[in-house]
Amino acid sequence: MSALQTLAENRCFGGRQLRFEHAAESVNCTMRFSVYLPEQAEHSRLPVLYWLSGLTCTDENFVTKAGAQRAAAKHGVIVVAPDTSPRGEGVPDDPDGAYDFGLGAGFYLNATQTPWSTHYNMEDYLRHELADLVEAEFPVDAQRSGIFGHSMGGHGAITLGLKNAERFRSISAFAPIASPTRCAWGEKALSRYLGPDRGTWKDYDSSLLIERGAAKTPILVDQGEADNFLREQLKPELLEHAAQQAGHALQLRRRPGYDHSYFFIASFIDEHIAWHHDRLCAV
Amino acid sequence: MSALQTLAENRCFGGRQLRFEHAAESVNCTMRFSVYLPEQAEHSRLPVLYWLSGLTCTDENFVTKAGAQRAAAKHGVIVVAPDTSPRGEGVPDDPDGAYDFGLGAGFYLNATQTPWSTHYNMEDYLRHELADLVEAEFPVDAQRSGIFGHSMGGHGAITLGLKNAERFRSISAFAPIASPTRCAWGEKALSRYLGPDRGTWKDYDSSLLIERGAAKTPILVDQGEADNFLREQLKPELLEHAAQQAGHALQLRRRPGYDHSYFFIASFIDEHIAWHHDRLCAV
Repeated sequence: MSALQTLAENRCFGGRQLRFEHAAESVNCTMRFSVYLPEQAEHSRLPVLYWLSGLTCTDENFVTKAGAQRAAAKHGVIVVAPDTSPRGEGVPDDPDGAYDFGLGAGFYLNATQTPWSTHYNMEDYLRHELADLVEAEFPVDAQRSGIFGHSMGGHGAITLGLKNAERFRSISAFAPIASPTRCAWGEKALSRYLGPDRGTWKDYDSSLLIERGAAKTPILVDQGEADNFLREQLKPELLEHAAQQAGHALQLRRRPGYDHSYFFIASFIDEHIAWHHDRLCAV
Repeated sequence: MSALQTLAENRCFGGRQLRFEHAAESVNCTMRFSVYLPEQAEHSRLPVLYWLSGLTCTDENFVTKAGAQRAAAKHGVIVVAPDTSPRGEGVPDDPDGAYDFGLGAGFYLNATQTPWSTHYNMEDYLRHELADLVEAEFPVDAQRSGIFGHSMGGHGAITLGLKNAERFRSISAFAPIASPTRCAWGEKALSRYLGPDRGTWKDYDSSLLIERGAAKTPILVDQGEADNFLREQLKPELLEHAAQQAGHALQLRRRPGYDHSYFFIASFIDEHIAWHHDRLCAV
């Protein structure tokens, strides 16, 4: 178990917004993450939600821009926000410095290809190392864990959630990359992290996982209809089709006028937190 | 009247978060500002609140970090967030590049000293040029205008509010610089923008304005007790003392554990917007 270093602490909505770093084995580097602990955490074990951010983000974007603390305080939910990739000296980046691969773009998978496989193991980091650490260090009720995210992090939340159904009991997403095997962002990332054999990509595609009969955890998705990435990258219709075919409970809400920004996330974050809370506390 | 250029538009809580720039005469440069228009603005004239930010901020910090749009949408209030100083080529900055003077630190006054007086006229910009522009371009009910702000912007909100009581009917602040003539931030800024004659500084000191019998507009202030700037720079006790002596209605709420950050502002922004709304709509 890694020791936690506290980087920041701010009182917020009666609770504490915290930021930590720790030496992470699964990704072979120092990782940072943020935790919101509502006031109720001082005397009770609480449900916990893991938020996975999108391309270019760190653990800080969600914490400063989404306004999630208000609803987390109201419902008594701990919210953990990890980084989006390994970081630091020695962690390789996209050779062209592109925003959609490498640093800030870990795609929540375990890379198998050189030079990525040494550090780019965000799947193991999240489902094992970070979740174990959070359960050891904070007053979470591990049986009440949910996962949600945005864009690349929506892809991460749905795939990690479906593949670790015993760990994550509720799943939601904002504008997820619904089928990374069938869009440019995904094809670039999966081909480099996993190699050219497309057979190895299927485990990292929400729509294909559902088609192949994943655990039936219900999924909530909000998608802005004015999102610039909707048609070329996100393709929620593929997720919707897969869910219909498989009889998987998916609630896809198309939101007229909303784009891909945190203004969209902030507008509906309260509903997502309430939705997770209701599911986790009905367990 | 300057023409407005739209820089950004994002749907948010059913309304629109907008960002503009325009050629501003009073400060002799191009100025940017943000406006949140709730959905109700499509069919009604609404109350308007002007938010003044603190040192180092632009118009964007409040818009992305405070989470004010939710309450603005709920109550049907337009929120305008200007920049904190003039900007652009030819606008002089602190010769040492300090954060507390020059760019990002206009102190909401009209400078009288060379080289500052050409551009650093934020007082005129706000109370005349921007307010006139907002009233011409957006569906505001000008009789229902309030002003609020943080730190340097709390100083700006109280001084501008008290000196323009016919324009601003409600005033609130988070952690305001309560008496700039009696703290290091204020003494540095006022001596450079206004020169060494302290007699000219009194018009830019909330506590002194109240002592001298300003308009009796009620003031709401929230102040974190874990704020690093509390004792040396902010000194709310001077405002409190002045209000008691003058019989001025000041509600000063000291908040244990809260610091100077936007996590503090976000925690209480709903209460400030509701407070302004109640006052402006009782007019």
